[in-house]
Amino acid sequence: MNYYFSKTVDDPMDAAIAKLAQELKKEGFGILTEIDMAATLAQKLNVRINNYRILGACNPHFAYEALQQENKIGLMLPCNIVVQQREDGRTEISAVDPVASMMAIPNESLANIAGQVREKLRSVIENC
Amino acid sequence: MNYYFSKTVDDPMDAAIAKLAQELKKEGFGILTEIDMAATLAQKLNVRINNYRILGACNPHFAYEALQQENKIGLMLPCNIVVQQREDGRTEISAVDPVASMMAIPNESLANIAGQVREKLRSVIENC
Repeated sequence: MNYYFSKTVDDPMDAAIAKLAQELKKEGFGILTEIDMAATLAQKLNVRINNYRILGACNPHFAYEALQQENKIGLMLPCNIVVQQREDGRTEISAVDPVASMMAIPNESLANIAGQVREKLRSVIENC
Repeated sequence: MNYYFSKTVDDPMDAAIAKLAQELKKEGFGILTEIDMAATLAQKLNVRINNYRILGACNPHFAYEALQQENKIGLMLPCNIVVQQREDGRTEISAVDPVASMMAIPNESLANIAGQVREKLRSVIENC
């Protein structure tokens, strides 16, 4: 199975992230964390990779519902979105499919919530 | 399959997190993100849950290796550790098993790296 939804847009990184944040907000997600992977790897290992950011998106209603069904679900939260610069200057945006990342958890109520979040993230990526 | 390693310690939250950070460092992990889930849910939904933090731990060597094997692996990074306060005042620390969270990704080289990270996180939790 594929484990993400992905789209490549013409916008440069910062504009793509601004648009992404707007689309996430429409679906009830805030961005709780941001990791600049290229900067982190440059600092820690002195290696260079293309601009690569990991954003942690969270819809608090679904997060709360998931927590009540599965106490350790914070281990799979927030839902990550990777934004990376391509060689051609375009920007690729990929959102995790929570059904894939949570497939090791045998909890039917949780799977139902993950399915709803999947559809929201799929819309976000389509609209970016 | 279980998707985490867990241990309950007598320390209160802050002391448990300080000890955890030390043990992570011994295994080459830094903490890149921290979400105070109780504060986030209180603010966004006006609901109360016990103290619940999600820490994002990353070992840059393994992260870089994983990125080279699987370009979208940032969707599963960092490795989360949940620290939560129990009713009896003790603190439960749970680390994700990366083999479980990455099981939807059909990539043998990645699975090998995930297996090595699993053993490191298992040691961290045992030593907390």
